[in-house]
Amino acid sequence: MRIGLAQINPTVGDLSGNLRRLLAAYRDLIAAGAELVVTPELAVCGYPPRDLLLRTRFVTDVENATAELAATTTDIPLLVGTVIANPGTTGRRAFNAAAFCHHGRVQQLAKKCLLPTYDVFDEDRYFEPADAPAVIAWAGHRIGVTICEDIWANQSPGDQRLHRFDPVAQLKDEGVDLIINLSASPWYAGKAGVRERLVLDLATETGVPVVYCNAIGGNDELIFDGRSLVAAPGGRLIATLAPFAEDCRVIEIPLPAPSSSLPAPSAPLDPLADIHAALVLGLRDYAHKSGFTRALVALSGGIDSALVAELAVAALGAENVIGVSLPSAISSQHSRDDARALAANLGIRFETIAIADTVASAEAALGPIFAGRAPDVTEENLQARTRGVIMMALSNKFGALLLTTGNKSEIAVGYCTLYGDMCGGLAVISDLFKTQVYALCRWINREREIIPVNTIEKPPSAELRPGQVDQDSLPPYDELDALLTGYVEEGLSRDELIARGFAQTVVRDICRKVDLNEYKRKQAAPGLKITPLAFGVGRRIPIVQKYVG
Amino acid sequence: MRIGLAQINPTVGDLSGNLRRLLAAYRDLIAAGAELVVTPELAVCGYPPRDLLLRTRFVTDVENATAELAATTTDIPLLVGTVIANPGTTGRRAFNAAAFCHHGRVQQLAKKCLLPTYDVFDEDRYFEPADAPAVIAWAGHRIGVTICEDIWANQSPGDQRLHRFDPVAQLKDEGVDLIINLSASPWYAGKAGVRERLVLDLATETGVPVVYCNAIGGNDELIFDGRSLVAAPGGRLIATLAPFAEDCRVIEIPLPAPSSSLPAPSAPLDPLADIHAALVLGLRDYAHKSGFTRALVALSGGIDSALVAELAVAALGAENVIGVSLPSAISSQHSRDDARALAANLGIRFETIAIADTVASAEAALGPIFAGRAPDVTEENLQARTRGVIMMALSNKFGALLLTTGNKSEIAVGYCTLYGDMCGGLAVISDLFKTQVYALCRWINREREIIPVNTIEKPPSAELRPGQVDQDSLPPYDELDALLTGYVEEGLSRDELIARGFAQTVVRDICRKVDLNEYKRKQAAPGLKITPLAFGVGRRIPIVQKYVG
Repeated sequence: MRIGLAQINPTVGDLSGNLRRLLAAYRDLIAAGAELVVTPELAVCGYPPRDLLLRTRFVTDVENATAELAATTTDIPLLVGTVIANPGTTGRRAFNAAAFCHHGRVQQLAKKCLLPTYDVFDEDRYFEPADAPAVIAWAGHRIGVTICEDIWANQSPGDQRLHRFDPVAQLKDEGVDLIINLSASPWYAGKAGVRERLVLDLATETGVPVVYCNAIGGNDELIFDGRSLVAAPGGRLIATLAPFAEDCRVIEIPLPAPSSSLPAPSAPLDPLADIHAALVLGLRDYAHKSGFTRALVALSGGIDSALVAELAVAALGAENVIGVSLPSAISSQHSRDDARALAANLGIRFETIAIADTVASAEAALGPIFAGRAPDVTEENLQARTRGVIMMALSNKFGALLLTTGNKSEIAVGYCTLYGDMCGGLAVISDLFKTQVYALCRWINREREIIPVNTIEKPPSAELRPGQVDQDSLPPYDELDALLTGYVEEGLSRDELIARGFAQTVVRDICRKVDLNEYKRKQAAPGLKITPLAFGVGRRIPIVQKYVG
Repeated sequence: MRIGLAQINPTVGDLSGNLRRLLAAYRDLIAAGAELVVTPELAVCGYPPRDLLLRTRFVTDVENATAELAATTTDIPLLVGTVIANPGTTGRRAFNAAAFCHHGRVQQLAKKCLLPTYDVFDEDRYFEPADAPAVIAWAGHRIGVTICEDIWANQSPGDQRLHRFDPVAQLKDEGVDLIINLSASPWYAGKAGVRERLVLDLATETGVPVVYCNAIGGNDELIFDGRSLVAAPGGRLIATLAPFAEDCRVIEIPLPAPSSSLPAPSAPLDPLADIHAALVLGLRDYAHKSGFTRALVALSGGIDSALVAELAVAALGAENVIGVSLPSAISSQHSRDDARALAANLGIRFETIAIADTVASAEAALGPIFAGRAPDVTEENLQARTRGVIMMALSNKFGALLLTTGNKSEIAVGYCTLYGDMCGGLAVISDLFKTQVYALCRWINREREIIPVNTIEKPPSAELRPGQVDQDSLPPYDELDALLTGYVEEGLSRDELIARGFAQTVVRDICRKVDLNEYKRKQAAPGLKITPLAFGVGRRIPIVQKYVG
């Protein structure tokens, strides 16, 4: 059977836009010889629609869009991910479903059985689960239809098996000739390998081909990488679609007997190339889907802002990125020079706006009320916040998206100023530890110097006090990042971290900083997710709480 | 039977502090003659613990704290809300449970059956549901134990019945002499009446007394109002515990036959008094539980900041509140006078810090790059953000919690400046529509003028342009608030709003503003919830999305 995979980039809620993409893909794939066209999960409304699903008309509007799409189908069926109302009076109001559209109408529905509620997922909030996966009979074959989590029953995070029921085992028992999975599977570094293993194992265990159609694109914090897969019964890879790009392709599925001449799996992408591609896609989609063509980055001369500027250029084009240097009375000459050198290397517009006078003016206004009190973090924050005011004024005046430049290490311990360097619409690298920031910058420089070497080699500093460097008050970044991985991502206790070999004083200090700064993260810009556990919707820690463990 | 209700105020994650409160309540209630002591839901760890539940040691630590508590129990049992590990290898790692502690150890567990995943709730993310409610046999009685949602099976929001199973019906079938419910039921205006009706109906339907023990206190966005209830079989109210305050009381339950001389239900609180009490509790707990004794409010002379200052005084004491007037070149004389009059009425410290020079300095710094461009919203925001910088400097220097003053109407349509007046740690009135702000201020003034009458009577204005008033670009607030209730709280479509009688142009303009400003709300301070649907964790709308419905 020749299956057309419509690996498209839907925008959440953009029903008419998504319909246009789906129609174009359907027609193109038929023209290329498809006998059945498959889309990603919730392709009609985009993933994740979140509380749009609770609006009174949304489910109906998505159903109507699905019917409109179905009306265009001919003798080549379209299996499209969509939302369908739950006609019953018990349970959630909708199903996450695949509509089998054929000869002008929706002929059959396949509903999702397993609803994830971990990490970024809240599907039990919206959807009623199906009791069993659907089997669609078509062209003499029995096609088992699954949606995303349905094939992950044995792959729950940790050693705990989350789901009591395995839709794939049921399909195997019932007997099918082919399994199709419609997915919107958020990417993180390394996910592609996990997913490929899962799909290949699935083909091996069930003894039938598996067609896995994934979404691509950025929607808020989530990046979908595409890389749709087709696997043959022997557990061999027949095809992988493009990473981080739309790709509509017809793949011949060996039915009923597997072909014996299958190509070997393609070599995996360089992990850093993968992260770079993901961030570029996430940034571009966040900007373009919200109507911005231009971006602003405050260039400190440091490595974080350099990386964000490079990503912005890759996503939006050098002509659409403005770098701004905002020297204060404390800023070193090298920070100004490095910022300028970066802008020159990237070929972006570069502006310098000195903040010393504005800071002095605010300090003067506060002088009488601060009389007799020593300088402290207040004055440091005042500088950072004055920069925030200036950058936001530029963002307002030029209609450009301000990008924040904080990395995961800094954001974890609160080495960032709320309403200062945290000002902006998107936190591009908030899920990269500082060590990953260095690695990615070296990767960017693999052929020629784009990030100035001095920016990479000098000791990192916020330059909020003369001579200040990050390592004055933090452990070396490789140690810090390992500790944060344990505390933030793995949820380890202080005792477990000490047992891993971290010094007790360091563990206590860093964990305390992480806990105390929850209030800053509450007010942070959305950040692009690149790890299994990013700050944001996938991590829900109370702000005011006193657990020490 | 004499039941002791321990209506306490737990802090999330404060295991040792909560244990102290529970032990003291247990002892006091025994001294007052209790034969069984009951606590709120998750009293050991506080509600909601959210992703603390995913930390490796948290569940064990809560179990250990529970065992420590159980070790102190004598022949008077304690039924305490806590978390218990799921010993199985399938499903979530923990149960939301009530531990029946007696003679030094946990004798029996009652696990929650129905896990809410609507509004602010995410319980399916953390807990494994029980298949049936537990019945505990004690002192010759069969006690049905339910936890919060377990008694709400027939009360799901909207006309849809969310849950397929009703634990109360099962208890009725099995036959019990008494139903106990441990709750952490977040308050909203009107919730107390809904809850009382539910508990009275439950006693009527089941024919047995119902003991409902609720938490009190503020935890992040949520306010718990206490008001624990005891209802007799006839559906008559035996007792209601204090609203918005800790209250530990022994109530005699008529077992097995109901007494015939039951007191009538007490009169409900004035709805505005209720909202006021809730906001005071929420503000006080947010501040005190996070270690702040003092608060700062920017006083514009307008009604929102006046209300927030009054609430801060009620919560923290006049000596702990500082009001700051930040006049710009545009500010009217009446706004300065009204701010000063308010501070005098409240007896708080009052400071004036002029921002004109700092604004001028920032404008001068931006002058070259803005050359030839007309003033626009940029300059308005620059004023608001300069105020934010100054207020945050005061917050840093004095260690005082900055309170934001935006109301729900403004925040809905984006009439607030990100990093400007949105700076602060807690959004005290972000769930009050402007019309409710007026009503509450009039209520505050019911005996004497506290909020200056001029503040209430003058046309509301952000004073970011000379002569600007809110109604230049918004419909009258009563119309706006009705429209926002429909769009934001009820999720109505534009067509449904027009069918309600709102003008099409107004509907389109306001709904568009609500949608466009999702990015501001993403970065807002947490706000105290007082309606069934508040901005914050209970409302999860994508930032970048294009649904128009």
